[in-house]
Amino acid sequence: MIRVGIMGASGYTGVELIRLLGHHPHVQISALTAQRFAGCKVAEVFPSLAGTLPSRNSTFLELNAEQVLAECDFVFTALPHGASYQIIPGILANGKKVVDLSADFRLKDSASYHYWYKMDHGRPDLLKEAVYGLTEIHRAEVRSAELVANPGCYPTSIILALAPLLRERIIDTGTIIADSKSGVSGAGRKGELAYSFSEIAEGIKAYGLPVHRHTPEIEQELSLLAGEKITINFTPHLIPINRGILSTVYACLKELQTFERLSELYHDFYANEQFVTVAQKGYYPTTNEVKGSNNCHIGLVIDERTNRVILISVLDNLVKGASGQAIQNMNVMLGLDETMGLRGAGLYP
Amino acid sequence: MIRVGIMGASGYTGVELIRLLGHHPHVQISALTAQRFAGCKVAEVFPSLAGTLPSRNSTFLELNAEQVLAECDFVFTALPHGASYQIIPGILANGKKVVDLSADFRLKDSASYHYWYKMDHGRPDLLKEAVYGLTEIHRAEVRSAELVANPGCYPTSIILALAPLLRERIIDTGTIIADSKSGVSGAGRKGELAYSFSEIAEGIKAYGLPVHRHTPEIEQELSLLAGEKITINFTPHLIPINRGILSTVYACLKELQTFERLSELYHDFYANEQFVTVAQKGYYPTTNEVKGSNNCHIGLVIDERTNRVILISVLDNLVKGASGQAIQNMNVMLGLDETMGLRGAGLYP
Amino acid sequence: MIRVGIMGASGYTGVELIRLLGHHPHVQISALTAQRFAGCKVAEVFPSLAGTLPSRNSTFLELNAEQVLAECDFVFTALPHGASYQIIPGILANGKKVVDLSADFRLKDSASYHYWYKMDHGRPDLLKEAVYGLTEIHRAEVRSAELVANPGCYPTSIILALAPLLRERIIDTGTIIADSKSGVSGAGRKGELAYSFSEIAEGIKAYGLPVHRHTPEIEQELSLLAGEKITINFTPHLIPINRGILSTVYACLKELQTFERLSELYHDFYANEQFVTVAQKGYYPTTNEVKGSNNCHIGLVIDERTNRVILISVLDNLVKGASGQAIQNMNVMLGLDETMGLRGAGLYP
Amino acid sequence: MIRVGIMGASGYTGVELIRLLGHHPHVQISALTAQRFAGCKVAEVFPSLAGTLPSRNSTFLELNAEQVLAECDFVFTALPHGASYQIIPGILANGKKVVDLSADFRLKDSASYHYWYKMDHGRPDLLKEAVYGLTEIHRAEVRSAELVANPGCYPTSIILALAPLLRERIIDTGTIIADSKSGVSGAGRKGELAYSFSEIAEGIKAYGLPVHRHTPEIEQELSLLAGEKITINFTPHLIPINRGILSTVYACLKELQTFERLSELYHDFYANEQFVTVAQKGYYPTTNEVKGSNNCHIGLVIDERTNRVILISVLDNLVKGASGQAIQNMNVMLGLDETMGLRGAGLYP
Repeated sequence: MIRVGIMGASGYTGVELIRLLGHHPHVQISALTAQRFAGCKVAEVFPSLAGTLPSRNSTFLELNAEQVLAECDFVFTALPHGASYQIIPGILANGKKVVDLSADFRLKDSASYHYWYKMDHGRPDLLKEAVYGLTEIHRAEVRSAELVANPGCYPTSIILALAPLLRERIIDTGTIIADSKSGVSGAGRKGELAYSFSEIAEGIKAYGLPVHRHTPEIEQELSLLAGEKITINFTPHLIPINRGILSTVYACLKELQTFERLSELYHDFYANEQFVTVAQKGYYPTTNEVKGSNNCHIGLVIDERTNRVILISVLDNLVKGASGQAIQNMNVMLGLDETMGLRGAGLYP
Repeated sequence: MIRVGIMGASGYTGVELIRLLGHHPHVQISALTAQRFAGCKVAEVFPSLAGTLPSRNSTFLELNAEQVLAECDFVFTALPHGASYQIIPGILANGKKVVDLSADFRLKDSASYHYWYKMDHGRPDLLKEAVYGLTEIHRAEVRSAELVANPGCYPTSIILALAPLLRERIIDTGTIIADSKSGVSGAGRKGELAYSFSEIAEGIKAYGLPVHRHTPEIEQELSLLAGEKITINFTPHLIPINRGILSTVYACLKELQTFERLSELYHDFYANEQFVTVAQKGYYPTTNEVKGSNNCHIGLVIDERTNRVILISVLDNLVKGASGQAIQNMNVMLGLDETMGLRGAGLYP
Repeated sequence: MIRVGIMGASGYTGVELIRLLGHHPHVQISALTAQRFAGCKVAEVFPSLAGTLPSRNSTFLELNAEQVLAECDFVFTALPHGASYQIIPGILANGKKVVDLSADFRLKDSASYHYWYKMDHGRPDLLKEAVYGLTEIHRAEVRSAELVANPGCYPTSIILALAPLLRERIIDTGTIIADSKSGVSGAGRKGELAYSFSEIAEGIKAYGLPVHRHTPEIEQELSLLAGEKITINFTPHLIPINRGILSTVYACLKELQTFERLSELYHDFYANEQFVTVAQKGYYPTTNEVKGSNNCHIGLVIDERTNRVILISVLDNLVKGASGQAIQNMNVMLGLDETMGLRGAGLYP
Repeated sequence: MIRVGIMGASGYTGVELIRLLGHHPHVQISALTAQRFAGCKVAEVFPSLAGTLPSRNSTFLELNAEQVLAECDFVFTALPHGASYQIIPGILANGKKVVDLSADFRLKDSASYHYWYKMDHGRPDLLKEAVYGLTEIHRAEVRSAELVANPGCYPTSIILALAPLLRERIIDTGTIIADSKSGVSGAGRKGELAYSFSEIAEGIKAYGLPVHRHTPEIEQELSLLAGEKITINFTPHLIPINRGILSTVYACLKELQTFERLSELYHDFYANEQFVTVAQKGYYPTTNEVKGSNNCHIGLVIDERTNRVILISVLDNLVKGASGQAIQNMNVMLGLDETMGLRGAGLYP
C-alpha cells in the first residue's frame, strides 16, 4: 500500500481527495493536516466521512511537513496559493513526489504569477520543473515528474474542449471565446456573504471580468498546443449548483468543415482516453451527468451560417477539475493504472 | 377602469399577467379564458392568487372570443403559437387592441415563420400590421398599434444589450455572440421529464444548438437597428432557477473605445427609460436583482487585449421578458403612463 | 403622505420593507439608516431597488435617531435584538409610533428575555406597553399601541394555525408538536459558513433543538389564547429555499371531530381576514404559493386512527413573517386600510 | 464473478444499482431490462454511465425473464408495484434469488396491499416467504431468504430511528409522530407537472395526508419490534433537493431518561453496524452528509419540559433507502461481506 498524505485537507478539494482515495485499492491515507482543525476528529469536521476512515488517521494534524514526510510516500498539497511554494521544496528535498492543487506552479512565468496573485513567487526556479498536470495532454511529462501542478477547473474544461482543434490548426485562434458556468463549490469552503445561499440561489452572475486569474493559465496551455501565442476571452459565471462546470467555447473555423470530420478528429484524439467522452451528434452534455465522476464529456456542433464551431464541455470541478485529476496524476507518477480509484460513474440524479 | 381580458390565462405568463395587473390602478380583469380549466375557480388552479381576484372573474372561461370581446376593452393573448393567429383577427375586427405574447406575429417574414414553427402562418397579411413590441426601441409604433407582438424573453435581453452599439455602428456586426442562460419557467407550465426537478437541479445544459427559434427574431431586430443584415451565434442554456435570463454578449469593436465613452453612450441611450438601468463601472448585474420586476439591468466592460466589448444583460423572463413588457405595451397603446402597475422593485432575496 | 423611517435598513427585512412600501399609496420613505453602509447609495448596496427610490432618500444615513425623528412620522426598527430597546425609548419620547421587528419586545417576561437572549433587558418597563403585533389576534390593542413588537416568523405561522383550536378548547394542549421548515433568508444577511450555498444546497437540517428561542414566544401567545399555560415541542428545520416557512402542527383532539366542523370553525374564525386563507378539503398549501405576499394559507386534516388534527400553515417569512406584517400593523396603528400596500399576489412560479 | 441482472433498470433506482454495482468487486452486470428503452444503448439513455459499462451489457433488453434467467445468478427487480409479483415467481422457480425494490412484497397482509395499492395481490402466498429486508433488523432472515422485499425509503429512516426505543419499551407507543422530508428523486423518473422544476423549486409541501402508503409498512415493522400493535402519524413532505430523507420522529418517554442512557442504548444497538452512525450529543445530522452513500445517521435529544425524545434520522433515499440497501441484502443473501461495494463516503458538498 502506498502511504499518502494530504496537506490542507479541510477544504472541499481535501475532503474530496479523501472520498476518492477511499475507492483506491493501492493507497492508504496516512496523514491529514489542517491547521485550523488540528487535533479535531476528521469525521466530526466532515460527517460525510463517518465510518469510512481507519482510526489511525482519524484526526487532523498540524501543518507539520516533517511528520507527514515521515509517514507518507506521496503527498497532495491542497493549500492556498502562496502557501504551497513554501512547503513543497521541503517535500521534494525529502524525495517524495507531490501533486499540488494550488495555483502556485501552474504558470511558467513568475512575472505573470506576481501580476495575477499579487505576490512574488518564492521559488521561481521550481516553475520550470513543475509539470502542468492536464494528464491527457502532458501524460509523458507527468510520468517522470516530481512535482505536478494540478490544473484549474476552468482551464481543464476549456483546454480539453479545444485541444484537437488547436493541434490540427483548424480554427482562427484570434476568435476564441470561452463562456463558462460553474457551481459554487469552486469558490471553496468559506463563509462570505457573496457565497451565502440567499445571495446565490435563484441567481446567476458573471465575475472576474474582463480577465480572470485563470485566463493566463488557459492561454499558456492553448498557446503551447497551437504553437503560437493565443489570447482569448474567458468569462466565468456562478450558477446555483454545487458541483459542475460547463464551458461553451466558440471559435471561427479557418475553412469549411463538416461535423463528421470534426467529430472523427475528436474521437481519434481521445480514442484512448478513459475519462473523456465525445458526445454523439446532436447531444450536448450537462453537468449533472458527470457529478462526482472524473469524466469530461464534450459535445460539438458547427453553425454553418457563421462558420463557427461551438463546443460544450462539462466536468465536475471537484473531481476532473481538482481532486480526481490529482489522483489520476498520482497514478501516472507512480506507474499505476491511470484509472485506479476513479472508475465510478457520476451520481445521477 | 379599463376592462381587460386574458385569453390563455393558465400558463406562467397568464398567471403573471394576473399578478401584475393586480397592481395596476386603471385596469380591472374582466375575463380569463383557459380551455383546460374552463369552469374551474382561478384560485384553485393558482393558489397564489387566493384572495386577490374579485369574485366576478374568479372562474376560468372557455376560449370563447365573443364573450371576451363583449366584456373587455383590451385583450392579451397568451396562447400557443399557431393558436394566436386564428383568434386575433376576430378581436381586431371587433375594434379591440391586442398584445399577443406568442411568437405568431414577431417575425415579419412568413417563410421564416414556416421554417421555424413548422406550420404555415394563417394570416401572413397581418404580419406587416403587427408591431414588434420591444417598447424602448419601437415606442412610437406601439403607440398607434392595434396589434403588438410581444417580444421573446431572450430577444429582449439581447436586443436591449446591443441596441446602442448597433445604432452607433461601433461594433463589427459579424462577430456577435450571445450566450444566454435562462431559468426554467421560460419553458412553460408543463409536465415533461426534461423539465422535471430531478433532471434540472444541480445541472446546466445548452440546447437549441446550433440555431434556436429565437435566433431569427433576434437577427431581424438587430438588423433593423444596424441597417444591415446581421447573423449571430445565439446559444441558450437552461439553469436551475425559476425566473431570470442573463445574456453575455460578445462583439469586436471596430476601433479602440474607452469604457467611459461606451458607458456614456449607454447612459444617454437609456436616459429616459424607467426600466433599463446601466450599471456602474465594474459591476455586473445578476438575475436575482430583477426577479419579479420589469427591470433590465445592463453591465458592460471592454477587454482591451482582444478589443471586444462584453455586455451582461439581465431581466426576469416572465416580466420584462413577457407579461410585464406586455403591460408596458398596453400602457403605451392606451396612452397611459408607461410605468403604471410596473414600478415595483425586484424580490430580493 | 406619511413620512416613514427605517432604522437598520440593510438587512433582508429592511430591504423588504422598502420594496413593500413602494406599493403603499400613502407612505413615503424619508430616512433609511444603516450603520455599516452610512453614506452609500441604497441602490448600490441593493441593486434590486435601482430606479425605485426618489433621490432624496437614496443614501443610507448613520443610525442617528434625531435626524430620523425630525424627518419621519413613523418608524420601523429592524435592528438586532439588544439594539432596539436602546433606540426605541427616544423615538417614543418624541411622540412617534414604532413597529419593532427585533425580538426585544416580544416576550412579556424580562427574565425569559435574559434567559434566551443572554442579556439583561435594558427597558423591562416597556415590555408591558408593547403590543405583540400578530394583527389577526391582537388587532384592537395594535390600534392604540405606540410600540408594536412584530412577531417572529415561526410564531406567526404556528399561532395562526392553532388559534381557532385553542380558543375553542378543542385540543389536548399537552400534545402540541410544531415541526417547521424554513427558507434561509430567515437567518439574515450574513456571511457564515453554515449558511453558504455549498453547505445548504441539497440538504436539510434541524437546529435549535431541543428548545429554540422562538419557543417561549410561541408558548406565551398560545397560552394567552387558551387561557392556560401551554408547553410545546417546536423543531425548526432549514431547507434550501430563500423564502417561506411551512409549519406542520400536530395535536390530539379532546374528542372526535369531523373535518367539516373544524373547517367551519377555521372559516368562521378567519372570515374577515384578508391575509389568511383556509384551504379546501384535501388541499395542503405550499410555500411557493405565498412567496412575496402577505398571505398565510392554512390546510387541515384529521387522522381518525390517532385522533390527531394536523395543520399545514405556510407564509413568506420576510413578508407575513416580518416586513409585511410590520406594515399591516402600521396601517392599523395609523387608522389606514389594513391591506394598503399589501394586496399583491404571491410570485409564482 | 456473480452475474447480476436488473429488471426495470431505467428508473432512478435502476441506474443507481448500476452505479453502485460498478464498485462491487465480485459482481458483473449481465443483463439490464427496460421495456421502454429495449434496444437502446444504456449510456445514451443515461450519459452518466458513459465509459463505465462493459460493451456486452451496454444495451437495454426487453423485459424477458427467460433471457435474464439464463444469463444471471442473481436478480434485482426494480419494476412498478403490480409488475413485480407477476415476474418474480418465475425467477424463484428457476432457482435464482431476488431482491425486489417495489412495494409488492413488503406488506404481510394482502388485504392491506389491496387497500393501499388498489389491486389484488396476485401471489399472496409468497408474502409469507418474502423477508422484509431492513438488513440491520432482519439480517438472520435475509441470510436464508430467496426473496427479499427491499424496504421503502421513508420506512428505513423511521424504523432505524425508533428500533432501539421500541425494543427496550422506553416510549409510549401511542405518541409516535414521524415528520419526514424527502428529496424529489423518491418520486421516480417521470414527467409530471407536480414534479416539474418550476413547481418544486423554492417550495415545500406536505402530501399523502392523513395516511400515506408507507404508513402501513412502517406500522407493521414498528409493531413487530415493539411486540404490540402500533399506530402512528406519518407526514411526508417534498423539498427541493434531489436525494435525501430527513425524518424527525417524536415520542413521549414512559419515564424520565437521561440523554446519556439513551445515547448508550443507541450506540450499543448499532455497535456492529457499518452503515448506521449515532451522532454525538448536540449534533443533528443533515441529508447532505449521506448523499450517495449507504449510511444512515441518527441524532437524538430529549426535551425534558415535555418528556419527549426527538430523533433526527437521515439517509439517501436512492442508496440506503433503495439500491444500496438492495445490494447490502444481496451481499447477505450470497454470504459476501455485507459492505462490499458500499463503503464509499457521501458526496460532499
